[in-house]
Amino acid sequence: MKIGVAGIGTVGVGVIKILQSHAELLKDRCGQELEVVAVSGRDQTKDRGVSLDGMTWYTNAVDMVSDPNVEMILELIGGSEGVAKDLCVAALKAGKPVVTANKALIAVHGTELATLAEKNDAPLNYEAAVAGGIPIVKAMREGLSGNAISRVYGILNGTCNYILTEMEETGGDFDAILSDAQALGYAEADPSFDVDGVDAAHKLAILTSIAFGTPVDFDNVYIEGIREVSALDIAFAKEFGYRIRLLGVARKNNGGIEQRVHPCMVRKDTAIANVSGVFNAVVAEGDFVDSTVYEGRGAGEGPTASAVVADIVDVAAGRISPTFGIPVGRLKAIPTMPVESHVGCYYVRLTVLDLPGVIADISATFRDEEISIESLLQHGRAPEEEVSVVLTTHEVKEDALLRALSKIEKFDHSLAKPRMIRIAKL
Amino acid sequence: MKIGVAGIGTVGVGVIKILQSHAELLKDRCGQELEVVAVSGRDQTKDRGVSLDGMTWYTNAVDMVSDPNVEMILELIGGSEGVAKDLCVAALKAGKPVVTANKALIAVHGTELATLAEKNDAPLNYEAAVAGGIPIVKAMREGLSGNAISRVYGILNGTCNYILTEMEETGGDFDAILSDAQALGYAEADPSFDVDGVDAAHKLAILTSIAFGTPVDFDNVYIEGIREVSALDIAFAKEFGYRIRLLGVARKNNGGIEQRVHPCMVRKDTAIANVSGVFNAVVAEGDFVDSTVYEGRGAGEGPTASAVVADIVDVAAGRISPTFGIPVGRLKAIPTMPVESHVGCYYVRLTVLDLPGVIADISATFRDEEISIESLLQHGRAPEEEVSVVLTTHEVKEDALLRALSKIEKFDHSLAKPRMIRIAKL
Repeated sequence: MKIGVAGIGTVGVGVIKILQSHAELLKDRCGQELEVVAVSGRDQTKDRGVSLDGMTWYTNAVDMVSDPNVEMILELIGGSEGVAKDLCVAALKAGKPVVTANKALIAVHGTELATLAEKNDAPLNYEAAVAGGIPIVKAMREGLSGNAISRVYGILNGTCNYILTEMEETGGDFDAILSDAQALGYAEADPSFDVDGVDAAHKLAILTSIAFGTPVDFDNVYIEGIREVSALDIAFAKEFGYRIRLLGVARKNNGGIEQRVHPCMVRKDTAIANVSGVFNAVVAEGDFVDSTVYEGRGAGEGPTASAVVADIVDVAAGRISPTFGIPVGRLKAIPTMPVESHVGCYYVRLTVLDLPGVIADISATFRDEEISIESLLQHGRAPEEEVSVVLTTHEVKEDALLRALSKIEKFDHSLAKPRMIRIAKL
Repeated sequence: MKIGVAGIGTVGVGVIKILQSHAELLKDRCGQELEVVAVSGRDQTKDRGVSLDGMTWYTNAVDMVSDPNVEMILELIGGSEGVAKDLCVAALKAGKPVVTANKALIAVHGTELATLAEKNDAPLNYEAAVAGGIPIVKAMREGLSGNAISRVYGILNGTCNYILTEMEETGGDFDAILSDAQALGYAEADPSFDVDGVDAAHKLAILTSIAFGTPVDFDNVYIEGIREVSALDIAFAKEFGYRIRLLGVARKNNGGIEQRVHPCMVRKDTAIANVSGVFNAVVAEGDFVDSTVYEGRGAGEGPTASAVVADIVDVAAGRISPTFGIPVGRLKAIPTMPVESHVGCYYVRLTVLDLPGVIADISATFRDEEISIESLLQHGRAPEEEVSVVLTTHEVKEDALLRALSKIEKFDHSLAKPRMIRIAKL
């Protein structure tokens, strides 16, 4: 199998390293030799630590498709538009298999690409797009095929998980830990894609499609990042027996689908709470298999390249799955449930003046919205000073909680916007 | 795809339930209808809660193979010999795909069956044989195909894990908890297959073969069950920051392979230590992907049937893997490392008379074998009474430790056989 690699950064180099160092093993595993015959990148002269000898260099990746020597395309350029998309479209139209690590592309144009793949009988694999080295796409498309999935959720962004874990361990605040993470290479110079939850949302949209047999619907993912999570929230979470994780959750619920990415309180004895640092983890719940958990490194040269190579081996061995597990024509749109209709328990932190009657006013507001308080903490400071009132609720519909918080925000003794974090029911 | 189901107990019934309740979904997932056309069991009249209407009943399962209507065989009879084996051999010889949940059969006759499968171009799938509903065979054969695996280990027996978890939570002793587990249906009337580690060893032998590309070698698995684990050991483990789990571990080590099943002390902050009750978990470590963890239910109707159906769907969809991930002719025997050559840390519990000089004698014996003690605990009782001396060692070769323990056992003040539990380096 002769391969063209488009985009020769970290992942591309990792893939070439695997193909070169495990050549014999891979031949045993897929029944044929895997050879990179063409490469495309920005700078041909750069030393990348791997030999590109004998590979044809393309300045324009799309031109690789018409190279008769190239039988399979690896798209490792990234981004949902531009060359990455053009390349995949061209390759699939030419009937050439595509393997990509591009979560944005699949999340935004997945259905269109799947349609092309099917029409031209060309496989489209993207294991590396979700949770790096963890073979979760394979598990969902094939390993759990005997199940109707009811919920899939997980830690889908290693940068956020690293920051939250460090905040928990050091007591530091978001900004300081983010700077450290940037210095260590765990966060980008512009971290917004990660810390604002967009990256996790791309991955969640893909998992949702495979889990429920729906067209990918990235636009309807509710997204909330981790910038607002404070050291105070993390400390209170601990006091209540929780940790804070950025979760992506997709769930079938009353005929609709919830897709949401936001910080969650997770009970500290759950598998998810024990996933630390840059690791990712996904939990898939099926009607026969019950709960299954998958954990591993969600990014980095080796893990991402591992996933890409597994996809290549599958194609070379002739093990083909429909892009989202079922034929495109069988994908059924399912309405999105707005996050306001979510029913769950909540953590709330209020910043108020420590005056007589404050707690009474707060409790009355919750009562009026029929919200039942499960526990309440007030760490006393001096009277008439700023104080945090922290509480958790029993199950309540999110819009009722939001109404209560909006009323409380308008109190005279309210000193800051109330903070709310959803408590995950795992 | 027309299927013959041999053995219609819990798992067989579970498979029929999935095929019936998810008929349309499964057709979407594999491109064809899956239909059970023949069944074999002991008692045709028994009500199993599923309809067997229209299925041909066979008293002798092997006869199903020559039924021209049967295109695929499910072997759910169990046992490494007899009808189960005869059936699989006959089916593969006839070129009919085989899906089995039979760990003993694959662990003992895997290479022979894989040879037949390959020769007759008939797939042999056995996802349900290892760790129930967890798609670990798929992850190892396909999902991690870009990696050389260095180690695979895990909790492979739910009964043992349930017993150890309960011992930990209740402080109870093995025999009492085993009785409870039997009453609850988590342990068999004759529990030896589970609690003596044989079941875990079957599964480990299979994982070893896939991980390292070797012929299955069940006979060379070192096996130690959990009968000797006492409430005292569990309490001391806790004091040292460990939990006790029955682990199966396969590791490449100095050109040889270790395959061992025995109780292990695992640090309480590891993924494995947090796997409780009847759950299974497997950790696979690859040179590019690093560590990946898979967790789920290791037994039971739904989870096991889920794995069987995933295998059926793969065959029906034409997604075929070599039985152990590579062609049989490429499997290479690798010498077994005897467990005595294992280098690691150990927990040791000695039962001695609380006399002056006891600790000095013990320490001298360890010193003579060049064993370095990491920590030592002696909970004092009255002098001249029985006391437990508990210690952990730094890394040492197992045979040196065994020599030391054998000397200590012969001391006058030694009141019981020394207890040793390996500490896992996870």
